[in-house]
Amino acid sequence: MSILLYELVGADAARPFSPHCWKARMALAHKGLGFATVPVPFTEVPTVEDGFATIVPVIRDGDHRVADSFAIAEYLDAAYPDRPTLFGGEGGRALSRFVESWTQRTIHPFVSTSRALVSIHDSLAEPDRVYFRQTREKVFGKPLEEVVVGDEARLEEFGKKLNPLRSLLEKQAFLGGDTPLFADYIVFGAFQWLRVVTPWQVLEAKDPVAAWFERCLDLHGGEGRKVSAAA
Amino acid sequence: MSILLYELVGADAARPFSPHCWKARMALAHKGLGFATVPVPFTEVPTVEDGFATIVPVIRDGDHRVADSFAIAEYLDAAYPDRPTLFGGEGGRALSRFVESWTQRTIHPFVSTSRALVSIHDSLAEPDRVYFRQTREKVFGKPLEEVVVGDEARLEEFGKKLNPLRSLLEKQAFLGGDTPLFADYIVFGAFQWLRVVTPWQVLEAKDPVAAWFERCLDLHGGEGRKVSAAA
Repeated sequence: MSILLYELVGADAARPFSPHCWKARMALAHKGLGFATVPVPFTEVPTVEDGFATIVPVIRDGDHRVADSFAIAEYLDAAYPDRPTLFGGEGGRALSRFVESWTQRTIHPFVSTSRALVSIHDSLAEPDRVYFRQTREKVFGKPLEEVVVGDEARLEEFGKKLNPLRSLLEKQAFLGGDTPLFADYIVFGAFQWLRVVTPWQVLEAKDPVAAWFERCLDLHGGEGRKVSAAA
Repeated sequence: MSILLYELVGADAARPFSPHCWKARMALAHKGLGFATVPVPFTEVPTVEDGFATIVPVIRDGDHRVADSFAIAEYLDAAYPDRPTLFGGEGGRALSRFVESWTQRTIHPFVSTSRALVSIHDSLAEPDRVYFRQTREKVFGKPLEEVVVGDEARLEEFGKKLNPLRSLLEKQAFLGGDTPLFADYIVFGAFQWLRVVTPWQVLEAKDPVAAWFERCLDLHGGEGRKVSAAA
């Protein structure tokens, strides 16, 4: 029985967009494991696997259920040690947490206050729109449309914040070195999130980060390209 | 024959301050290898090991000479595989490059344009002062004393830039997890650089980054504390 991956979607069940779910999907593809995806709108997350978790991604692998993208990667590396490694050892696992922390403190805050926020809202089915607007506006303390004002002006600063990643990718093909590791998918998930929800180009074509992202889209039979860029 | 470590110093040969040299020193201590240090002022770097390298740290281990802190860590892990690992595997080695890139793009630019710059200059012997001022003022295009103006005002922004590290260290003791890896020494080197050259406190005592730095100072018989904080 193939592995089930529960992924967040909007009105179009074929366009998963969550950065965390993309990390899990790429991890499964990296391991070369067959998997089927189950689309889950925001308001149905609590029903996944009979209320197993309050978040997606969730995977079911036979009798095993795992929630949270990092925990899923850890599970897959432990359960399938003969398949390509996601961490490259214990040191890689520990330092992937730094990559996660950096990504969630650097890329996610930019994406989630940019036009992507409104695009996500607009892509949702009606009950999810209500849920999304209410929960996010409670956090931000203002309408979504006001949160995203000035995203173009924040783009230059965001570009500079990518310098640690950029200078690394000037020297090596992937964060994992010559080949990708889960750390690559952590960062990839954030840019894929943007790509799926908005046509806004935040990276210049000549940017080493853009070249790396294209390489990631090509990985594992083009898993990332199976969902087209937002038009 | 014990390993020789060539380290950058100022007028006081007992106060090595270079972040890169501290990375190498901590790597040697981590491996539990005996080593002797050779103090090297700026203007004598080209004479180290008969002009072997244009930078320090350099180590000599029997017939092997290695320059550059990262290359030294790689050499030590390869040459002494039975000693505690510095990378925790290939994944850890690859991702340590991201930690290096982040540190050099986040912490180093702050330190090297802060009052530490003038403190380093003032701590040097006369010929090194001339060399240091000329080379740095050529890069900055202005007097050292002008470069460092406003460092207090830049401190708040610097503190925010540490958030990816901070949120990681709220959850785990070291970048390496429960125990340190070379990645810890990469970041440690930058804060030790500040500690050795200036009494300026850039971290609040309650900051998880400060607590982690204190833990690092305690490692390996207090290797980092052997050189006292600047008064």
